Amino acid sequence: MTAIPKVNENEKKNLDLIIKKRDGKQLDESEIKLFIQHVIDGSFKDAQLGAMLMAIYMKDLSKVEVSHLTREMASSGEVFKWPQEWRGSIVDKHSTGGVGDKTSIILAPALAACGCKVPMVSGRHLGFTGGTLDKLESIPGFTTSRTSEQIVEALKEVGCCIVGQTANLDPADKIMYPTRDVTGTVDSLSLISASIMSKKMAEQLDALVLDVTTGLGAFMKTENRAKELAHMMVNIGKSLGVKTVAFLTDMNSPLGMAVGNSLEIIECLGALHGEGVPDLIDLVIQLGAQLLMDCGKARDETEATNRLTEVLNNGSAAEKFCAMMKKQGVDPDLANKLCLKGSDIRELLPRSKFKTELKSQKSGYVKRIDAMNCALVSNMLGADRDKTDNQINFGVGLEVLFSVGQQIQEGDSWIRVHHDEEVLTSDVEQLLMDALSVDSSKDPNLRPTRVIEIIS
Amino acid sequence: MTAIPKVNENEKKNLDLIIKKRDGKQLDESEIKLFIQHVIDGSFKDAQLGAMLMAIYMKDLSKVEVSHLTREMASSGEVFKWPQEWRGSIVDKHSTGGVGDKTSIILAPALAACGCKVPMVSGRHLGFTGGTLDKLESIPGFTTSRTSEQIVEALKEVGCCIVGQTANLDPADKIMYPTRDVTGTVDSLSLISASIMSKKMAEQLDALVLDVTTGLGAFMKTENRAKELAHMMVNIGKSLGVKTVAFLTDMNSPLGMAVGNSLEIIECLGALHGEGVPDLIDLVIQLGAQLLMDCGKARDETEATNRLTEVLNNGSAAEKFCAMMKKQGVDPDLANKLCLKGSDIRELLPRSKFKTELKSQKSGYVKRIDAMNCALVSNMLGADRDKTDNQINFGVGLEVLFSVGQQIQEGDSWIRVHHDEEVLTSDVEQLLMDALSVDSSKDPNLRPTRVIEIIS
Repeated sequence: MTAIPKVNENEKKNLDLIIKKRDGKQLDESEIKLFIQHVIDGSFKDAQLGAMLMAIYMKDLSKVEVSHLTREMASSGEVFKWPQEWRGSIVDKHSTGGVGDKTSIILAPALAACGCKVPMVSGRHLGFTGGTLDKLESIPGFTTSRTSEQIVEALKEVGCCIVGQTANLDPADKIMYPTRDVTGTVDSLSLISASIMSKKMAEQLDALVLDVTTGLGAFMKTENRAKELAHMMVNIGKSLGVKTVAFLTDMNSPLGMAVGNSLEIIECLGALHGEGVPDLIDLVIQLGAQLLMDCGKARDETEATNRLTEVLNNGSAAEKFCAMMKKQGVDPDLANKLCLKGSDIRELLPRSKFKTELKSQKSGYVKRIDAMNCALVSNMLGADRDKTDNQINFGVGLEVLFSVGQQIQEGDSWIRVHHDEEVLTSDVEQLLMDALSVDSSKDPNLRPTRVIEIIS
Repeated sequence: MTAIPKVNENEKKNLDLIIKKRDGKQLDESEIKLFIQHVIDGSFKDAQLGAMLMAIYMKDLSKVEVSHLTREMASSGEVFKWPQEWRGSIVDKHSTGGVGDKTSIILAPALAACGCKVPMVSGRHLGFTGGTLDKLESIPGFTTSRTSEQIVEALKEVGCCIVGQTANLDPADKIMYPTRDVTGTVDSLSLISASIMSKKMAEQLDALVLDVTTGLGAFMKTENRAKELAHMMVNIGKSLGVKTVAFLTDMNSPLGMAVGNSLEIIECLGALHGEGVPDLIDLVIQLGAQLLMDCGKARDETEATNRLTEVLNNGSAAEKFCAMMKKQGVDPDLANKLCLKGSDIRELLPRSKFKTELKSQKSGYVKRIDAMNCALVSNMLGADRDKTDNQINFGVGLEVLFSVGQQIQEGDSWIRVHHDEEVLTSDVEQLLMDALSVDSSKDPNLRPTRVIEIIS
């Protein structure tokens, strides 16, 4: 017996949307609204969602469709509400992820010190890039799970917070994201853009900067694809009324010196006291300066840069970070000690049992430190949660002792591995050996900054 | 918090298959085997199946892939087993559906009368075309639900049966078919072919004829698409070792004179006594002759045609139908009466309360009787199960009183409507009025047969 088709009313409506997209036609505003509404209320069943995502992957979405999709996803759940007097000052930064990328942890308090309100909703370890929330949780007591009321309170009292998604933020993405994962539809720039931007749009920002990374340690391996993504996200933000600028940045080598949870927190605390390494501080300041200009807290780049440099040097950014830690569950005494300039904070944070330094086998100039190899090693050491959801080892990781462009001698220790197993595996050693490229002469094209292009 | 992807082992394997097809690559035998295995055991989850079907819809399958897919679907469930001594004689026919298409009901007993074994697994009403099983169930007591053991027994004792799918026939199709229905992936010739042919291949036939209809009353509206489907199915059958020939047939006007359940049974009983109208009998004989030749029961078309004409005229086809009815639950006394040549059998079957004849408003030659309009009217009268699964009214339907090509006078009754509501709705009248096309001269290109082309 051949089954008699039983298609209910909602399934029929969904089917019309799928067929329209399958045939490469454009979905209008009301159709995208219906799509997301049905995803949320469960009437867009799994099989239909799988088919729709594949159709979108294959036929893509127009700029207008992506913008509608983002707005509908953003408004599918909780949308932050801010006091009227904050309007104009509410800013955030989002990065597409990188190895050693700790800018958020420095930027949020620095911007708060400049008078911004920074409701930074951040992410966890994903694929190979470390997660800001994981890093923060290496600070004993730090909690990233906050309600929207607690976020408002934090912004009122401190000016910034760095938290995970609230329970009802962007439920459409919470359904679509894992479905993309198993249906071969992750790699769609339209869907990536909508997923990222919908969460940011639900934050009801005035200005947003995007750090779109490209290179060995980034999701977007090629500059062209990263640029395409950047343009798409900037377009979405602007079309939905948020000042949005994207920074296309180089992620071939790890950002800063540390890779690993507590090691990166230690680096951040240094940077918050004006002791950051140039590539990291330059990026933090460029991203922050854009936001200060966009929300009218600085007239031009010079003023913005000076203001940020000031708060990093005069301790006010560190103070904000200290207040934020306290607000997010860290014992006040510990928070104070961590933010005391010049104190040895290593013993206050999780530490690895062993440290091993590796030596350069060549003299010359550091050409590259392969970010992907560093990420893989960091993962092998236990710094990341892998797919089986095991525990993060907060103390392990890498300290890169040389920067790209720096001169190095054969026999110089160039990286310090923080590990808990007594002996490094040969895989780890090999990956790190392969990670370091040393050239006999300095690369004449070496960029003075991570920023490749600014897209607005 | 961004969700950490949790993809289990099977999901990962499925994902690889989806991505391969998404990227337009060919799935090999073992991959298609895995796909169907995971569909059956439930590890190919709905979202993945939706995405895979959409990827197949968009990138299509090669001939080899369709053949593998069909074989894996066929062997996903019960596969019929026949006594060795029947080998060579086991045949079936499948039609892609038409209005007034009752060939199976005449063909199965006629072939049995010629010594074939005909395990006809048939379908129900679908979309707009009547279902063979529904028609047979208008005979009081006729049951179409049989186990494979009962089918073997029927073939042993009678030589033929017309039954619904057994519980475990082609479970892969039972999952994929309804999923295609809601994901906009029905209309893929590869998936249509695999769905039809997998069920036929599970029957373990020696020869198969396919009636691939095209025109107003067919699923394939255009001849080219019907031809493409025919070629695809013939290719599958042959590649899997079954002699397969497809007849491309014209389905612009209803086949024979009756449309509706008991009305069609009455027409079939006439045809089984050698009193069928030319278009119907011609098609039955052409399809049957092909099978007789393919299974070696006739040396050539003339012998095959003569043999079939003989069994239809000498009552032996009717006897087989009588025996089949008894074997499938019809009271022997009723079966005997129904098969008694010349008896008025109308009162033995469900009848409508009212009959209304409509008159031609023009004189000339019947050019066309729109099969789709007839199907719609038949549906409105209640002859078909609609999507809400309501009861079939077995007695209602249409008797077309003129054939295409016949001369007609203004005022001649050309159609008799059998209905249960006292008055015909204006919609019904309008559809029927529009269904009849009369030309002043006879169409010089009128085909003497429904068969447009034979594809082997």
